[in-house]
Amino acid sequence: MKKLALIAAAMLLGSAAFAQQALFGGPGVVSPEINADGTVTFRYQAPKAVKVQVTGDFLPTQKTEFEMNGQKMTFDSPGVADLKEGENGIWEYTTPFKVAPEMYTYTFRIDGNSVIDPNNMFVNRDVASLTSVLLVPEKGARSDLYAIHNVPHGTVSKVWYPSATAGFSRRLTVYTPAGYETSKAKYPVLYVLHGIGGDEDAWVTQGRATQILDNLIARGEAKPMIVVFTNGNISQEAAPLENSTGYTRPTMSLPQTMEGTFETAFPEVVKFIDSHYRTIAKKQSRAICGLSMGGFHTLYISLNNPDMFNYSGMFSAAIGVNDPSVSPIYQDFDAKLATYFSKKPALLWVGIGSTDFLIQSNNDFRKKLDAAGYPYKYMETDGGHIWRNWRIYLSEFVPLLFK
Amino acid sequence: MKKLALIAAAMLLGSAAFAQQALFGGPGVVSPEINADGTVTFRYQAPKAVKVQVTGDFLPTQKTEFEMNGQKMTFDSPGVADLKEGENGIWEYTTPFKVAPEMYTYTFRIDGNSVIDPNNMFVNRDVASLTSVLLVPEKGARSDLYAIHNVPHGTVSKVWYPSATAGFSRRLTVYTPAGYETSKAKYPVLYVLHGIGGDEDAWVTQGRATQILDNLIARGEAKPMIVVFTNGNISQEAAPLENSTGYTRPTMSLPQTMEGTFETAFPEVVKFIDSHYRTIAKKQSRAICGLSMGGFHTLYISLNNPDMFNYSGMFSAAIGVNDPSVSPIYQDFDAKLATYFSKKPALLWVGIGSTDFLIQSNNDFRKKLDAAGYPYKYMETDGGHIWRNWRIYLSEFVPLLFK
Repeated sequence: MKKLALIAAAMLLGSAAFAQQALFGGPGVVSPEINADGTVTFRYQAPKAVKVQVTGDFLPTQKTEFEMNGQKMTFDSPGVADLKEGENGIWEYTTPFKVAPEMYTYTFRIDGNSVIDPNNMFVNRDVASLTSVLLVPEKGARSDLYAIHNVPHGTVSKVWYPSATAGFSRRLTVYTPAGYETSKAKYPVLYVLHGIGGDEDAWVTQGRATQILDNLIARGEAKPMIVVFTNGNISQEAAPLENSTGYTRPTMSLPQTMEGTFETAFPEVVKFIDSHYRTIAKKQSRAICGLSMGGFHTLYISLNNPDMFNYSGMFSAAIGVNDPSVSPIYQDFDAKLATYFSKKPALLWVGIGSTDFLIQSNNDFRKKLDAAGYPYKYMETDGGHIWRNWRIYLSEFVPLLFK
Repeated sequence: MKKLALIAAAMLLGSAAFAQQALFGGPGVVSPEINADGTVTFRYQAPKAVKVQVTGDFLPTQKTEFEMNGQKMTFDSPGVADLKEGENGIWEYTTPFKVAPEMYTYTFRIDGNSVIDPNNMFVNRDVASLTSVLLVPEKGARSDLYAIHNVPHGTVSKVWYPSATAGFSRRLTVYTPAGYETSKAKYPVLYVLHGIGGDEDAWVTQGRATQILDNLIARGEAKPMIVVFTNGNISQEAAPLENSTGYTRPTMSLPQTMEGTFETAFPEVVKFIDSHYRTIAKKQSRAICGLSMGGFHTLYISLNNPDMFNYSGMFSAAIGVNDPSVSPIYQDFDAKLATYFSKKPALLWVGIGSTDFLIQSNNDFRKKLDAAGYPYKYMETDGGHIWRNWRIYLSEFVPLLFK
């Protein structure tokens, strides 16, 4: 009778996939498992596999060298560990160390083929790659900010705005803080920009931005604010699979990226937000930040609109790598910088990892600021051009805003 | 130089996973591929695998028999096809038939292990199972409703409402139609409920409900309306991984499911929506529908609140399978039915698949309606207890509302 009830329940699910699993499979393999001693066990069932490995940023990184513009550079790539086959074809690997609180991504390699963990439903998409997510939160640790807690939650909306520049509607993610719908108050606005491989989803998936905002606001460490996550690829309506091109495979060689169009068109986003949300529509209550390409966009949008943003945050900004001749947006840099600082912005914030391949161009930029006596805040962290750092920078930047 | 540019670009992505792929991998395997002749090719790279199969509802179904309450029943489970190994360890299968326009889900079986397609970023989660998605839209076919088109798009929000019954905040998905933010108009509201294995995400992922709404409204075939997708598991804050329990594995044996609490508490959802959105807050402008458990919820919420909903849609409703003694919500059925119809609701809509294991209980319910002369609309489709049918029923139900 219990079996019948199970079958009936499985049917009620209305999921052929699930019904199959419930009827014919077992309870499944548990992976990943955070053990009581702080180690983590990864498991993968593959009875006929020859070699099963796990790779992810929870493992010590490997240094990989490459050259750019004649300079030798290194970047950190994730380590790889072998799983051992046990009973029932279940392969297993337990870290020989306590895994520090953080949000990690990992994949399995089965005989050279890369797959996500089929027993972990927490999946990130980054351009065309899927990865499994391991979140290790710990009270008091920074990663606790990335977990969902029983605190007032903001609303997260996918909103389309008409872009006159693009000639079509484009998708934004908009966070309105808890209480927005009923407060009648006006709110300051933070614009958050992604890197060259991202889209309007990146900061709320890999970036955990809405959890960071919910938690910082609940703790009283950040002001309630509206946060707008744009899509910085102006030739694109929306994230892959959310636009009318259907199955077109995401690519990083999108047209109109880092050639001035997005930055030129940015005021139309601000205008849309100011006309559709209860914003405090003035410089004192506007901030902008971004990672990598988004840090580059942040810099040029700020310089070209010196009356628009009072707070600007450059996270591992991809400065010094583009051709400034392609757009007036990138020209007259020193003069624009002088004008920008003459208007006394409340904060220019620069953060970068000590092994980031862009640290030299960021150091050059800071030397220029230092030489002119322009004020800014600087944070240097371990590691390279990675999401771990961008979550840290957002967590540090947001509490400084609108005070 | 081109190679350096590629490396630099890959680094800018800020994705270790992607950088690795761009640097060390190839362009990847294309899968699935919809061919010019309408067949579909699936590919999977596994040089050392012994057996690679694909299973999904694009293949002819297999009948599986089971018994419930002493009755022999059958349900449709997806077929399985073998891939053949070709060059570079790439396994391939091309359907010997044109795949009809529809939205399908599939997984690969590698030596018995079930994995999603690593080359298809379009992934559905259903309870604890991940599946890859194949959408074959075709102009004029119903599945074209499920595709994203360049039409005005509504806003899709994840919103938390305080549930006095549950004692914590709970997550809703809310669709507001294109133009809502600026129109100042008031809108009718449709509440859409999921099955026992789902949550507030199910209808917008597997159900394609927001695409259906966008497209029907853009064609003028449905009225602009607010659509609210609840989480019918009252013991749960939100979908797995969106709630404060972290890695807790989703299960179908959630407490407080189909025992009256959700239905009893439903008016608090309506109250929240009416107080936070510009709704037409009266029966004439409210509709409710749901699939499986959600169809069951729809029936009892409608009967227990006969002044609340003018339109009710039962999709493959899980009626006749619960124990009515557990809650007053389920008791005095005939009297409540008489009261409900005495108030002349605009529409009771019943849809079910001809091979659904619940068709007998739905037929019994219809006999009762017929015997009493209570009016309703009925639609019977091919197939069983599957999402294909629920997308069809939503597409048929929505145009009938608020006319």
